[in-house]
Amino acid sequence: MGTTGSLVDIDTALDAISRRVQPLPVQRMKLSAATGLTLASPIHTDQDYPPFDRTMMDGFAVRTEDLQDSPTTLNIVEEIAAGSIPQVGLQSGEAARVNTGSPVPPNADAVVMIERVQLSPDGRQITTDHTPTVGENIAHRGSGVHAGDLVLTPGMKLTPSRIAGAAAAGAAHVDVFRRPRLALIVTGSELVPVDVQPSGGQIRNSNGLSLHAQAVESGCEVIDLGVVGDDPKRLEEHVTGGLTADLLCVTGGVSMGQHDHVPSVLEALGVDIIFHKLAIKPGKPTLFGIGPKGQVVFGLPGNPVSCLVCFMVLVRAALARLQGRAADWPAMITAALTEPLPTSGTRPAFMPARLESTTLGQWTTAPVPWTGSGDPFGPAAGNAFIYRAANAPALAVGEPVDVMPTEWPPLFLRSEEA
Amino acid sequence: MGTTGSLVDIDTALDAISRRVQPLPVQRMKLSAATGLTLASPIHTDQDYPPFDRTMMDGFAVRTEDLQDSPTTLNIVEEIAAGSIPQVGLQSGEAARVNTGSPVPPNADAVVMIERVQLSPDGRQITTDHTPTVGENIAHRGSGVHAGDLVLTPGMKLTPSRIAGAAAAGAAHVDVFRRPRLALIVTGSELVPVDVQPSGGQIRNSNGLSLHAQAVESGCEVIDLGVVGDDPKRLEEHVTGGLTADLLCVTGGVSMGQHDHVPSVLEALGVDIIFHKLAIKPGKPTLFGIGPKGQVVFGLPGNPVSCLVCFMVLVRAALARLQGRAADWPAMITAALTEPLPTSGTRPAFMPARLESTTLGQWTTAPVPWTGSGDPFGPAAGNAFIYRAANAPALAVGEPVDVMPTEWPPLFLRSEEA
Repeated sequence: MGTTGSLVDIDTALDAISRRVQPLPVQRMKLSAATGLTLASPIHTDQDYPPFDRTMMDGFAVRTEDLQDSPTTLNIVEEIAAGSIPQVGLQSGEAARVNTGSPVPPNADAVVMIERVQLSPDGRQITTDHTPTVGENIAHRGSGVHAGDLVLTPGMKLTPSRIAGAAAAGAAHVDVFRRPRLALIVTGSELVPVDVQPSGGQIRNSNGLSLHAQAVESGCEVIDLGVVGDDPKRLEEHVTGGLTADLLCVTGGVSMGQHDHVPSVLEALGVDIIFHKLAIKPGKPTLFGIGPKGQVVFGLPGNPVSCLVCFMVLVRAALARLQGRAADWPAMITAALTEPLPTSGTRPAFMPARLESTTLGQWTTAPVPWTGSGDPFGPAAGNAFIYRAANAPALAVGEPVDVMPTEWPPLFLRSEEA
Repeated sequence: MGTTGSLVDIDTALDAISRRVQPLPVQRMKLSAATGLTLASPIHTDQDYPPFDRTMMDGFAVRTEDLQDSPTTLNIVEEIAAGSIPQVGLQSGEAARVNTGSPVPPNADAVVMIERVQLSPDGRQITTDHTPTVGENIAHRGSGVHAGDLVLTPGMKLTPSRIAGAAAAGAAHVDVFRRPRLALIVTGSELVPVDVQPSGGQIRNSNGLSLHAQAVESGCEVIDLGVVGDDPKRLEEHVTGGLTADLLCVTGGVSMGQHDHVPSVLEALGVDIIFHKLAIKPGKPTLFGIGPKGQVVFGLPGNPVSCLVCFMVLVRAALARLQGRAADWPAMITAALTEPLPTSGTRPAFMPARLESTTLGQWTTAPVPWTGSGDPFGPAAGNAFIYRAANAPALAVGEPVDVMPTEWPPLFLRSEEA
């Protein structure tokens, strides 16, 4: 596979994920439970939409031929509430009161908005000087889609807009790729819980909570297996448990230290290690493997920022693939720099940054203070990572740079700080 | 307030929301439960970070003064696992094996990466020709932050990156604005559930499911009050229930039809109607009010696309405000058109569109086929809305246009369809 020195490129890594990760089984479920999951079968609508000639505005259904002279007075013969069926067809000189969503009565070919008519004092006639065009304010039966039309295609994520489309099409149940189950193991004898004051060589376990949050945000069911010290026997027990999930993330223990047992434990449990060093900064020791039953396995670096970045770039791509989608680069926004950037290094790099917009569609960015992969406070102060390709040239203020937001949607118009 | 004709501008509407919607009460909760909520109090770290001089790489802690000649051989006097405390300080000619995350022993001032040393066959000595700089591969105590430093500020949304920062700072509990409770009422006698085949003038209730999905996606606890026919008495009962929530969305019944009871019922229950006609297409009849206890109330149009757009533009702004953030425009991405657009109309408009990126940071867009606000299949086929200001000029292929994604993060690199 393509490498930079002995390191695997991000493109090569994503290709490997694309090839080796298989979509999860398809599950039929209620549409109301499927938000955020990805469609596995097409949805065809079961009827014309709208299912009848439908009024688009509150007003009066009319025959346009009656309104060629101006002003004209028409007799109101009926009121058609939404949900009811017109009782009579319009004759010459007649109108029917209609409401948004109500059926247009037979013989009517336009709806005049209520704002454009004068109602007689007895409420039985209208007068208007408006000359409507044929079809005005009417959504004709089948003008949206016809019965049998394909309205949603496999691979589409069921966003609220698509839930609306599926609902209108009558898809009370949908075929989706099963929600991924993601197991988390954090390794390291130095780790203490967040509510403990570290002493000696200890440090707080920040990866456990942030990975859990990333997994939930990515739509996973999380199996949190907690913290394991640098003990290969206990690690093996935890990994065995973790391999019951669809995807296992193990943090720490993937470097070249004597206590980095993750690669050997994974191999002992039958995990095929596809790559183990990545051309990315931070995140070089990242490991990707496939378990004996097709389980997806990531060994993520223990440094908190490496862990964050590699989840965003690689684990999310694998989760997309498990959901039947492409294992692609994360989405990026182009922003204008408000501070210069130096030439970048030999590995593609992600630098904590602040991304802001004060004008519609225009984004600015600058790095936030940061001391490196072990420092979680840079990404916490920012809301994005600036992406720099390997050996990219220095950039001046105002030049464009690609930015990966950590917050969707990213900030808009004003600063989020109160 | 600023209006276009008799309609309120979007800017004016957002200003009104900013002024009239008050942040929810602050609640102290476990950090692990606070993902996605917004910080109400600053977080200061309780200790230096890193809390000790920390090794950044697997390798050997050394005294740089010992390595001025090349190659040099040093005696290994100790191995310091992550989490353990160095037992001895280095003397001249000595090294200690260290792992990523382990403390640097006294007197050491650099760490040589393991890849740069040769271990003797008995494992008791290393030889290296590398001359490290002082501080190499060491994160010094307090180099990230010092005890007492401000690391997270009020108004920040607790994304996974910020959860990591808060965890490292020892914030096991955090002050956040309470999760909003959003009540939903869908009105219309014409509505039938999704699993029912509509007949006569009936239509499926697509707003119920899509609004529910939008509310969940926006981080709300949802109180779903179901469907009410066009009956003012029952509507009043439902609205009374809905006013126990922080924010109430009522769809339908806000136009000028005879069965549009929402405004009068709201007023009868003490809701102060702040605006009721908005310069937006689709979505003109949108209503915003404030209940007697400060409850936020939206009357959203019954047409499914109007309902989607007004939630994205207005309800989300109000939810941000309830979370102590600014009530701003939705985030937009600038994309190059792949199809021309005609001159736009007199109301600012949102048109269903497809937003795609096949090159890092570069986005393209085009409208999807769509017949208007009653047609939910356009937005379902797309993944965004193109925004057009009032009376905007025609645009040619390749020209930039502002796009509001309906899916975050939006599509990247390849199409989502399988």
